[in-house]
Amino acid sequence: MKLSCPRNVLQSAFSIVSGVVPQRSPKEILRNVKLTLADGKATLIGTDEEVGVRYELPEVITESAGEVLLPTQRITAILREVQDDVIRIEVSEEALWIRTSQSEFRLSVEDPAQFPNVAAFEDQDYYVIGGKTLKQAIQRTIFATDTESTRYALGGLLLELDASHLTLAATDGRRLSVVKSSCTAQGAVQEEGGRPVIPAKAMSLIERSIHDEDQEVHLAVHPHHVLVRSGQSTIYSRLVEGRFPKYQDVIPASYLATIEFVAGPFLSAVRQAMIVTNDESRGVDFTFQDGLLTLTSLGQDVGSSRIQLPISYDGEAIKVTFDPRFVQEFLRVLDGAGPVSLNLIDGNSAAVFKADESYTYVVMPLSRDDR
Amino acid sequence: MKLSCPRNVLQSAFSIVSGVVPQRSPKEILRNVKLTLADGKATLIGTDEEVGVRYELPEVITESAGEVLLPTQRITAILREVQDDVIRIEVSEEALWIRTSQSEFRLSVEDPAQFPNVAAFEDQDYYVIGGKTLKQAIQRTIFATDTESTRYALGGLLLELDASHLTLAATDGRRLSVVKSSCTAQGAVQEEGGRPVIPAKAMSLIERSIHDEDQEVHLAVHPHHVLVRSGQSTIYSRLVEGRFPKYQDVIPASYLATIEFVAGPFLSAVRQAMIVTNDESRGVDFTFQDGLLTLTSLGQDVGSSRIQLPISYDGEAIKVTFDPRFVQEFLRVLDGAGPVSLNLIDGNSAAVFKADESYTYVVMPLSRDDR
Repeated sequence: MKLSCPRNVLQSAFSIVSGVVPQRSPKEILRNVKLTLADGKATLIGTDEEVGVRYELPEVITESAGEVLLPTQRITAILREVQDDVIRIEVSEEALWIRTSQSEFRLSVEDPAQFPNVAAFEDQDYYVIGGKTLKQAIQRTIFATDTESTRYALGGLLLELDASHLTLAATDGRRLSVVKSSCTAQGAVQEEGGRPVIPAKAMSLIERSIHDEDQEVHLAVHPHHVLVRSGQSTIYSRLVEGRFPKYQDVIPASYLATIEFVAGPFLSAVRQAMIVTNDESRGVDFTFQDGLLTLTSLGQDVGSSRIQLPISYDGEAIKVTFDPRFVQEFLRVLDGAGPVSLNLIDGNSAAVFKADESYTYVVMPLSRDDR
Repeated sequence: MKLSCPRNVLQSAFSIVSGVVPQRSPKEILRNVKLTLADGKATLIGTDEEVGVRYELPEVITESAGEVLLPTQRITAILREVQDDVIRIEVSEEALWIRTSQSEFRLSVEDPAQFPNVAAFEDQDYYVIGGKTLKQAIQRTIFATDTESTRYALGGLLLELDASHLTLAATDGRRLSVVKSSCTAQGAVQEEGGRPVIPAKAMSLIERSIHDEDQEVHLAVHPHHVLVRSGQSTIYSRLVEGRFPKYQDVIPASYLATIEFVAGPFLSAVRQAMIVTNDESRGVDFTFQDGLLTLTSLGQDVGSSRIQLPISYDGEAIKVTFDPRFVQEFLRVLDGAGPVSLNLIDGNSAAVFKADESYTYVVMPLSRDDR
């Protein structure tokens, strides 16, 4: 097989596909990316057998056919270091040859027939989501997953789909992040598209694969996997097994107080309050009273702090103790100049942050014992 | 004690002084920075007892006096997170108070009397070096030190001083980097200023402390330590004990061939040749012949590579095997567009790279056994 390819095209393709390649794996062969030439097309695939990426190289026309395993780490280094605009790839004498005008690399290769396949996107029935919408929804939820949990469903993002709406939800049991957005359907999707739970690793890869925010993303749901097509790439992911919590149940139906903030100054105050906390005393007290939010923390053997922020609230005093990391992680995915509201019942009930009507973030306060 | 200080002034002072503070130390107290107010001046000091920094805060006038230990990590976080232009520091009730308009931090402190002193620069006799000159000379030599060696002198930079010249030299026994530059003398320095060997950590700190490249740096040599003053900061360093090798002996007196390069393309070729090497086979063969440099490498189980670079040399063929990391480390501290010459005798003799007349870098080729 032989292939000539613009270096920048191969480099950007490789940067997406190699994102799924495991650094270490008991199956050595997975540390490669497979290149296939067939039917005039060149395709790269990489997989860790849970998540896979298939990328069709644009601007490449080839009359050659065949397949070869590219050793990911060295090919990445070659693409970074060579200076030429065009790279030639050839398999001969049982080796892989990479050539540019001044450079030639011969690399030992493994048997491509042993490499697991990654399904192509051949569905006729799928959901259609705006790239920008999906990218933002993933960024606003993925940090609330818990990939260490023995409850595997918490390591994924729940997608609730129907023909016109997509809801993403993630929770680690102590806080919950939910984003609602719109989508459309192509072909005969189920009216209720099921509730697939997709691993955080796959969602992170999908988020990074969306380069052109105006591009449509296509999502096909199967019983045990999903396929997500975005531009040149198709991402395959096995679904997470296990039941995702009934997250609607933790969102209170009404509140006693609603307090408005600007995201940036609120984030700054929370980050200041985190300084004098430590592993033994993580909690920060948030007191809302007399037009001021006062954050107080007390770190064993360290000291204490008191941070104030003017607010437009002068109702009854409310004191809630939060793990400040949870509040920080929410605020930092927002536009710093944008509005945020915090909806409270009391110091023991779920607190609900909202940014836009579509984004809801619920945090359980720390109880006295947790602090 | 009480002090008001512009936040940016304190932050840039802290970033220099905290560079010397050990992350971990059996002496917990060294993880602080000491602030002293006396005679209308505010001074910060930090030390790991080998290297110390003393920084006099500019634009600070205080009528208060006293001293306090600032916990480095938390103060750094406060300076990064608070938004106000002015920070107030106060010691009362046996605690340290940091205040801005909206924030107040109370931190537990240790006894400042237990903190080791860092000598002030009070010398009348010292060498004067241009900031830009010294900064570049350190960058061009420090990478050739070997801080892991049991021969302690290899972990430092040798300074050879007289009233008009400064030479910096560093070696790890396999390569040597030497930069000659000019200096002047203030007061009655010794004509032969001795040959202090200064630890790489201190030299790195000195390099980073030179912000204004037009600024003069003052260097006072004592029998067992040096003091280096640059702007607001004075760096104290113990000297490394042990004899620095007679480095002049390894520089050949004449060469059989001199080959000219541009640094950037040469670096690119070397970086490409490094891709197909591994721990078992580090060497890259450099062959100079017929107007071409050809770099060849052969990595056990990995493959091989051949990289070519046009050169203006058509003398007798010369083949030298280098550890490419050594060549790379030299080329990357140079301006990519600048000239480099490589002076050779044969494949078994020291090779001498030169950039400017003032910068000499000697690399011993690998013998067949080392490859």
